[in-house]
Amino acid sequence: MSIIEEKRDEISSMDAADPLAHLREKFVLNADEIYLDGNSLGPLPKATPERLARVIESEWGKDLIRSWNTNHWIDYPARIGERIAKIIGAAPGTTLCVDSVSNNLFKLLAAALALRPERRVILSLDNNFPTDLYIAQGLQSLIGRDRCELRAESQDALESAIDESVAVVMLTEVNFRTGERLPMKTLTQRAHDAGALALWDLSHSAGAVPVALEDCDADFAVGCGYKFLNGGPGAPAFLYAASRHHDHLTQPLTGWMGHARPFDFPLAYEPAPGIQRFASGTPSILAMAALDSALDVFDDVDMRAVREKSLALSDLFIELVESSPVLKELSLASPRDHSIRGSQVCFRHPNAFPMIQALIAEGVIGDFREPDILRFGITPLYLRYADIAEAVKRLEGIVETGRWREPVFNERSKVT
Amino acid sequence: MSIIEEKRDEISSMDAADPLAHLREKFVLNADEIYLDGNSLGPLPKATPERLARVIESEWGKDLIRSWNTNHWIDYPARIGERIAKIIGAAPGTTLCVDSVSNNLFKLLAAALALRPERRVILSLDNNFPTDLYIAQGLQSLIGRDRCELRAESQDALESAIDESVAVVMLTEVNFRTGERLPMKTLTQRAHDAGALALWDLSHSAGAVPVALEDCDADFAVGCGYKFLNGGPGAPAFLYAASRHHDHLTQPLTGWMGHARPFDFPLAYEPAPGIQRFASGTPSILAMAALDSALDVFDDVDMRAVREKSLALSDLFIELVESSPVLKELSLASPRDHSIRGSQVCFRHPNAFPMIQALIAEGVIGDFREPDILRFGITPLYLRYADIAEAVKRLEGIVETGRWREPVFNERSKVT
Repeated sequence: MSIIEEKRDEISSMDAADPLAHLREKFVLNADEIYLDGNSLGPLPKATPERLARVIESEWGKDLIRSWNTNHWIDYPARIGERIAKIIGAAPGTTLCVDSVSNNLFKLLAAALALRPERRVILSLDNNFPTDLYIAQGLQSLIGRDRCELRAESQDALESAIDESVAVVMLTEVNFRTGERLPMKTLTQRAHDAGALALWDLSHSAGAVPVALEDCDADFAVGCGYKFLNGGPGAPAFLYAASRHHDHLTQPLTGWMGHARPFDFPLAYEPAPGIQRFASGTPSILAMAALDSALDVFDDVDMRAVREKSLALSDLFIELVESSPVLKELSLASPRDHSIRGSQVCFRHPNAFPMIQALIAEGVIGDFREPDILRFGITPLYLRYADIAEAVKRLEGIVETGRWREPVFNERSKVT
Repeated sequence: MSIIEEKRDEISSMDAADPLAHLREKFVLNADEIYLDGNSLGPLPKATPERLARVIESEWGKDLIRSWNTNHWIDYPARIGERIAKIIGAAPGTTLCVDSVSNNLFKLLAAALALRPERRVILSLDNNFPTDLYIAQGLQSLIGRDRCELRAESQDALESAIDESVAVVMLTEVNFRTGERLPMKTLTQRAHDAGALALWDLSHSAGAVPVALEDCDADFAVGCGYKFLNGGPGAPAFLYAASRHHDHLTQPLTGWMGHARPFDFPLAYEPAPGIQRFASGTPSILAMAALDSALDVFDDVDMRAVREKSLALSDLFIELVESSPVLKELSLASPRDHSIRGSQVCFRHPNAFPMIQALIAEGVIGDFREPDILRFGITPLYLRYADIAEAVKRLEGIVETGRWREPVFNERSKVT
């Protein structure tokens, strides 16, 4: 009897006792499919189509331009920002829903450098999500290396590299490839000890792990609306700045929505008070309404319960894979230690790419990350323990039958 | 008999002979309301709710992450860009649907300055849409006045200010306040004669007047998706760069979607070939699908026919207002001359604000622009000549009864 069979009753009991089990019904999920890619694109909340239909047909269709006032479209960025603030441990008035992660990073890096004019180094990790590094490179190219220098260090070298040349330490809390979670509080403290600022990318954290920006004394943060927050493909991102900095912040994407009095149409830019100065152009109301609707799911959710279930689901996944003789060639790429693991489980295998493709064909949706990683997002709002067991069972089937060797699973598509 | 009564038969004939009349049925329009604010937020195309429902419920809800490939989400920015290119006289491969007008201006201004490293001046007009000036100010603050200096001249002084200090002339073709249209070809030539580049903001042009970017030899352009293109509130913007510049363009918002090989996740930024390098973060698919759907309306529309009707509607509006003794205190703020008028008609009146508010209450939706302008967008895809007559009639009613003096119409709201 396989371990999955052996543990079947135990797994049923875990689902029966799951305090978050009722949240699954709030999502559209395909029958017989196990969706382990909510860290790439969260699934559709059941309430979202109706909300969008209302915004489109009534607010846009009937109320038209008046909706900026009457349906409070103008308040969306700040109001949705407040909702996200609650999920990431941020104070009121510090978080804005705006633009993309990339463009928000640009704004915050420029703002951070302006707060430390005598320094020029943006310190990051060479395993950071590439867009974070690209944006720092873009800023460096624009303003010159004498004012901005990206240093991307290996993780081992990070702490010793935080010295008095560093203006801002830019880190992603949970690594997109392995799911390793960095110690936000410790590293923020290290940055502050060296007189540097700390900017955190929460793209793989927000909605997945309890984040405590204020408690960690973080200076800045950005994060993604379309992963664990389930805001829809390419959902607007968010941006955080600690209120102690607000009066001193300048940012370069000075579009009219960040102006103190945009509808007076004055010629000179004057930043809005507080976090609103990080707004730039007119935001998509449809995109923001979808994210707003998705945040309803989080209203009564305790992020500590989410975390507990995430770890339990992940531990079960690791245990089942590691106990399977069929899967002995897979090696764990995510940390085993809870304290440094986010909400995903990854394994390495030289044939990770075709194996993931074959697994998707069997209805288990994970994804591949270069060079050899099978990546599985763990999303406690809708995953059951039984789903994890079934996913591992199907993975065993793929390996046992060698189905992944079929040519169709070895063809690369544009997006993986 | 008022002139409106006198011309009733003529107006009916104009509607009967209108070659674009059939397009009105493609839009959701409120009964008994005349929507003259399509230059601020275009109305809902009838096909859009169904398209969005499909994208949300099927592509996101069922196909999930696979849609980036199977439903070609990854191609949206370029594909929608191609559709817009046809409307603005741009060559294939030169136009991308991306970000906001503000952020696109930032990218293009930085790119333009990099093409003219020995120059530093961004020349614009002091009556330009403020966000254009703000963005130039933001860039100037970031990279320093020794590398970027915004000069905002009066319109009279513009031509003589185009000298060999100017790196880029940044102009909006159609003025947001008065509807005055600048001579794109002449001014672009003037810029080129001085060795400068020409960047055109088409926010009030695209979908409203025939634009011929290639014929005008324009270097760069940006424009808005939510005005005359009817893409929905805060729809994604677009960006154009002439293909002759493509190989030499650098831009600072170097998010992963503008990388040559984003899904290989390399550490160093390498711009994608062509216009794709102006992409930054992950775009909202819901927002882009709405714009894509709205562009269907333009598929078989000849922009010359749109222009002809726009001028005829506008001329009628001006004639009826100027012939009305009741409206004698309104003075035309838009150019009378077709060659320098866009697709809006504006009048000045010291009490423009309460008058517009009272008019909106009567079902004629225009808007107010500081300091004293009643602004009416002319959108030939769904406006009838009879609508213009009815709008003027209701405006006469407002003035005759003095209803605009009521306190409720004098209260300022956040967005006007």
